[in-house]
Amino acid sequence: MKIDVLSLFPSMFQGVFGESILKKAQEKKAVELDVIDFREFSPHKQKSVDDYPYGGGAGMVLKPEPIFEAIDHVTSSGEKKPRVILLCPQGETYTQKKAEELSNENHLVFICGHYEGYDERIRENLVTDEISIGDFVLTGGELGAMVIIDSVVRLLPEVLGNAESAEKDSFSSGLLEHPHYTRPAVYRGLEVPGVLTSGNHAHIEEWRMKESLKRTWERRPDLLESYPLSQQQKDWIIQLEKEKKRVE
Amino acid sequence: MKIDVLSLFPSMFQGVFGESILKKAQEKKAVELDVIDFREFSPHKQKSVDDYPYGGGAGMVLKPEPIFEAIDHVTSSGEKKPRVILLCPQGETYTQKKAEELSNENHLVFICGHYEGYDERIRENLVTDEISIGDFVLTGGELGAMVIIDSVVRLLPEVLGNAESAEKDSFSSGLLEHPHYTRPAVYRGLEVPGVLTSGNHAHIEEWRMKESLKRTWERRPDLLESYPLSQQQKDWIIQLEKEKKRVE
Repeated sequence: MKIDVLSLFPSMFQGVFGESILKKAQEKKAVELDVIDFREFSPHKQKSVDDYPYGGGAGMVLKPEPIFEAIDHVTSSGEKKPRVILLCPQGETYTQKKAEELSNENHLVFICGHYEGYDERIRENLVTDEISIGDFVLTGGELGAMVIIDSVVRLLPEVLGNAESAEKDSFSSGLLEHPHYTRPAVYRGLEVPGVLTSGNHAHIEEWRMKESLKRTWERRPDLLESYPLSQQQKDWIIQLEKEKKRVE
Repeated sequence: MKIDVLSLFPSMFQGVFGESILKKAQEKKAVELDVIDFREFSPHKQKSVDDYPYGGGAGMVLKPEPIFEAIDHVTSSGEKKPRVILLCPQGETYTQKKAEELSNENHLVFICGHYEGYDERIRENLVTDEISIGDFVLTGGELGAMVIIDSVVRLLPEVLGNAESAEKDSFSSGLLEHPHYTRPAVYRGLEVPGVLTSGNHAHIEEWRMKESLKRTWERRPDLLESYPLSQQQKDWIIQLEKEKKRVE
């Protein structure tokens, strides 16, 4: 997979692209990551990239030329058109489903703005996907691009080792994870639950399933609606509801 | 504000902490950012930070000692207890409201894990907030911490300049933004809407309000439910609904 990022702050990406999974994925040639300072594509002497909005108002607007030219540059090899992703608050909310969809592409391009709006002609003529990573305000699109790139690249074949894949599987089981414990068995007076050191695997499995259900029921009851509960699991939930009423 | 990040990949933060708003905020002494490699606090010779889970199973679990010791270290000045934020998929979903809440604190500590689970004693005894930035899987907690830090620090007094504050205000109006345009008026045959170059400010305002409503109605109708619509705005939405029916 080829990924190009258009940004005015290319050095923001150094740390994240140079460590951990993204570093490994590049070493394994699973992905080629490039960050392009689109200021270089400004047609102006002063290399300006924004200008006042037509119709007046506060704030600056990113000009069309540097973005159009930069997109021409990254697509000049003449292959199939890339997915061009604009990070913006008005975009669709990013989810794992979208990560899976994007992981099937050959070429992704991210456009990261800062503070300003984008000239609408960029949106209408270049962009294939507008994405927001959540309902919060960030300084620019860079962190959103890093989040999407991390979540997509880890889905590419051969990028994750076995240990990391296992973690992924456990997340996608449909329930929240049960609590984990490791050594020491007692730390600062805090003990590991006895069942986990009992060696009784049936008890351990039952404890884990109950805790997983309990955590999901407490924190994300919406996940239970689409989860195929067994009769045993339904009984446990009825028990949790009874216990809650008793406390109230 | 003081912010400490506990991570096994401290250099991931260099680019993001060294640019743009976070760089400015540090120069203005509005925030002090430190990244601590919690591996240094491992009591073991090999500086291990994870171990096999009690009760068996795949994956590794972050041990309690390095995190407990690192938290002791960052809170040793004896001030008021910090907010200790754990990035994890089971946490509450991050929103702008949470950003505003955290921006009122004096001291934030972020715990970033990688791949592994956390020993439950960390969660129960140290953590005050468990946060997820969205329903997608990331390699580690680092990007989530960067996202939260960026969104919180930009809310601190004197961090943002006027231009950036204006952008923020426009986002929090309750509607999505109208389209923006800047020079040139014609680029690659693509024209700016005539109303914006007309000089008629009443028409421009009306066009912008209509476009803003239209975009919100199309993409985020949920926002309209809590927005105090005027009669004129309600009429425009009825018109949008009629036009949509005509097309279908």
